[in-house]
Amino acid sequence: MSVLAEFSMSPMDKGDSVSKYVARSVEIIAESGVPYRLGPMGTCLEGEWDQVFGVIKRRYDRMAQDCRRITCSIKVDVRAGHEGRITGKIAKVEQLVGRTLQK
Amino acid sequence: MSVLAEFSMSPMDKGDSVSKYVARSVEIIAESGVPYRLGPMGTCLEGEWDQVFGVIKRRYDRMAQDCRRITCSIKVDVRAGHEGRITGKIAKVEQLVGRTLQK
Amino acid sequence: MSVLAEFSMSPMDKGDSVSKYVARSVEIIAESGVPYRLGPMGTCLEGEWDQVFGVIKRRYDRMAQDCRRITCSIKVDVRAGHEGRITGKIAKVEQLVGRTLQK
Amino acid sequence: MSVLAEFSMSPMDKGDSVSKYVARSVEIIAESGVPYRLGPMGTCLEGEWDQVFGVIKRRYDRMAQDCRRITCSIKVDVRAGHEGRITGKIAKVEQLVGRTLQK
Repeated sequence: MSVLAEFSMSPMDKGDSVSKYVARSVEIIAESGVPYRLGPMGTCLEGEWDQVFGVIKRRYDRMAQDCRRITCSIKVDVRAGHEGRITGKIAKVEQLVGRTLQK
Repeated sequence: MSVLAEFSMSPMDKGDSVSKYVARSVEIIAESGVPYRLGPMGTCLEGEWDQVFGVIKRRYDRMAQDCRRITCSIKVDVRAGHEGRITGKIAKVEQLVGRTLQK
Repeated sequence: MSVLAEFSMSPMDKGDSVSKYVARSVEIIAESGVPYRLGPMGTCLEGEWDQVFGVIKRRYDRMAQDCRRITCSIKVDVRAGHEGRITGKIAKVEQLVGRTLQK
Repeated sequence: MSVLAEFSMSPMDKGDSVSKYVARSVEIIAESGVPYRLGPMGTCLEGEWDQVFGVIKRRYDRMAQDCRRITCSIKVDVRAGHEGRITGKIAKVEQLVGRTLQK
């Protein structure tokens, strides 16, 4: 199974600039060894369910140390018999459209 | 910490009527003992992070047995020092608005 | 077409207690005449696409008057040939499960 | 106001391979002139509220022509006094982390 998950996690109690918290969390992801991809609205991870949700849990544990209210959204797309979708999905759409797209 | 999570999980490969799969999953939730609340677009759970995500994982494991493509979305709102938000949040809004609302 | 949408909208720059802003927005929804249903994590609306997104737009316009950073999530389930799903979906699951559920 | 929105829209009634529908929709986005960015789990758009939701509406109208059940999720981050966040948010995180990240 390829579990592809995009998630974002932010403190709600730290004002309108939260990039410090996001940066700190990105380090947890980069160190995890799980394939990831940063986007403007969230980070994608690909792996088995427990790998992916293990990374999200570590990020939560870190944020919960100094934030009293946290909002998080996770979108998951699971597909049997497919791997490498973190890069493959866009490549397939480009192939169908017949040109390179903004990414 | 009160971890309040709303999630929905559906097969993508079983046509446009998926209530059979939803019903089966609801039984897993009802048997978990974790406070829950059914809505038109998802199910809310409230507990600690591991409790809530344990239920979601069991639901995923069951669905993965006979579905090859699954879509899932999870929205989480964590707040320190508050409990009972699965019912309390709406009650507080009603108090502020000063009347009963559709729920 | 029945467009069933659950959405939540919150200021990110007003600290960890945002129920005042939620209450104000709920009034916009209640006055719209569009069938709605409040939940712990968001509000469901049912109607045509333009009706539903018109309500969300009005709520955004009101919040943008005094909030500098706003987060919003919207989940939409559209189905042809079905109406009344804001109450009907849960009723169908209860029928399949064979008992009343927490809602 | 910079309205940054990530969305995905898929038919639920066309089996587990939906890239044909995604490709068709991407053309609507590319032709809109609104800055966009493709990701593995959705497409980001940046503009004013009506521009962004106008593109999503056109994509919905096209999909509704031949799909009877459609699922869509939209996540919006609005911020006053900031522009170019579709590329700027990642750049800022990279600056804080002090290195280039997978994107």
